[in-house]
Amino acid sequence: MNSLPIGIFDSGVGGLTVLRALRRHLPHENLVYLGDTARVPYGTKSPATVERYAVEDASFLDRKGVKMIVVACNTASALAGAELHRAFRLPLLSVIGPGARAAARATGSGRVGVIATEATVESGAYATRIREACGRRAVEIFSQPCPLFVPLAEEGETDSAVTRMVAEKYLAPLREQRIDTLVLGCTHYPLLKNVIAETMGGGVTLVDSAEATAAEVATLLAEQGLLNDRPGRGESRFYVTDAARRFHRIAEQFLGEPLGHLEAVVAWWHDRLQTR
Amino acid sequence: MNSLPIGIFDSGVGGLTVLRALRRHLPHENLVYLGDTARVPYGTKSPATVERYAVEDASFLDRKGVKMIVVACNTASALAGAELHRAFRLPLLSVIGPGARAAARATGSGRVGVIATEATVESGAYATRIREACGRRAVEIFSQPCPLFVPLAEEGETDSAVTRMVAEKYLAPLREQRIDTLVLGCTHYPLLKNVIAETMGGGVTLVDSAEATAAEVATLLAEQGLLNDRPGRGESRFYVTDAARRFHRIAEQFLGEPLGHLEAVVAWWHDRLQTR
Repeated sequence: MNSLPIGIFDSGVGGLTVLRALRRHLPHENLVYLGDTARVPYGTKSPATVERYAVEDASFLDRKGVKMIVVACNTASALAGAELHRAFRLPLLSVIGPGARAAARATGSGRVGVIATEATVESGAYATRIREACGRRAVEIFSQPCPLFVPLAEEGETDSAVTRMVAEKYLAPLREQRIDTLVLGCTHYPLLKNVIAETMGGGVTLVDSAEATAAEVATLLAEQGLLNDRPGRGESRFYVTDAARRFHRIAEQFLGEPLGHLEAVVAWWHDRLQTR
Repeated sequence: MNSLPIGIFDSGVGGLTVLRALRRHLPHENLVYLGDTARVPYGTKSPATVERYAVEDASFLDRKGVKMIVVACNTASALAGAELHRAFRLPLLSVIGPGARAAARATGSGRVGVIATEATVESGAYATRIREACGRRAVEIFSQPCPLFVPLAEEGETDSAVTRMVAEKYLAPLREQRIDTLVLGCTHYPLLKNVIAETMGGGVTLVDSAEATAAEVATLLAEQGLLNDRPGRGESRFYVTDAARRFHRIAEQFLGEPLGHLEAVVAWWHDRLQTR
């Protein structure tokens, strides 16, 4: 059981920020990553559709024999978190809780900004979880959807003049609110971290839910006695629901090393659709 | 038969540029539009995936009892055109042929630019069809993928500083090639026509395949004796595969009038996936 992999899914490349953090926190663990690149993006789609996609993604990982599922997509966490917990018996952690708790720890002034997809912002999930995490402390939350950040990250425009202009448009209202903490509420956004930090200026702590999530995964596995105790570095396997070429290029650039096992599961996906 | 609707499909809102042109050319016709908003965009996905999606979209229209299918998505036309012709007996016209023929008529110098999605550019479909349409005339074709134009159009950024900056980046190489004709090889791009025209400068004819396609649909229906001869203005019905709210907002803004019938076919889509 302990040497079984941890399963991670996202709509595309964004969840790689969580995978990278997991590798750093838990180098012995085996990881299985699924990017639903045939249907990316999720953040502009409806709650019913995102819920359906998320359950299909988690089923794929379940069938791969994982010991735990990490929902590395904020939109899926916000819109399908409850349904996923209901449908799967495996330990399951989604990025929103850890991100919200990290924001509550980071803020001094209680003025917290959240940037996320349209769907995540509309769900109100971050505001709810940050308020819970702050308990009786006063907190004001300012949310801003940033719909062009996902395509910019997917196109590799991580540090361009275009991205800086888009960031200025989205982030100026948050700067004016004098927030001291900004939650990167979409796993694609850490890819644009430099531009976001520069645009917000000094004195604002950026909360990357990937880091917070990896730390909580480590705690959860330790508590349940599920840490992999075999020596040596764990393996990562990657699956995508569409052809792998685009994913391959962006993923290698982002992870800074060759991907070991990368497989397009078009056929699996299609079969599943035919037989359910 | 003649009063049956014309079916039109696209990955999202882009095909509305074709629908609008059809209404102008053929005001008596009834139209049925399908936007596959649950899986938009197509232009960044693989040939196999786009082909599967296009066949499912056309099947939906076929089951609605249309007399003809218009593939109002350049990516689907480029990657699935042959398969669609094989799989359906209905008259079927896709946007690439009419666009290529219009470009061949428009160019004087034989220097033609094509802007399209990554998938359409990689297919080489426009270059092949423009060369065919030019016959023995010499022609040089310069193709440029513009991956951020679809999300910009879908976000309503039709005339913004961000769009102008992105356009400058994509179009400067084409301007340097001194083309005299530019094919808007994605049905979303006419939504950005003002910015594209401004960036290219005077002396470049923009070919909007929506207009060319509507004219060819009119000719084809007339030749086959399929024009609707009932008096009065035809009706348009709209279907989307995801929740309708986003589509509704962009579509009404674009068409400049309230949508009559708009229906989210999530349930149909899901049923179809379950029963095939």
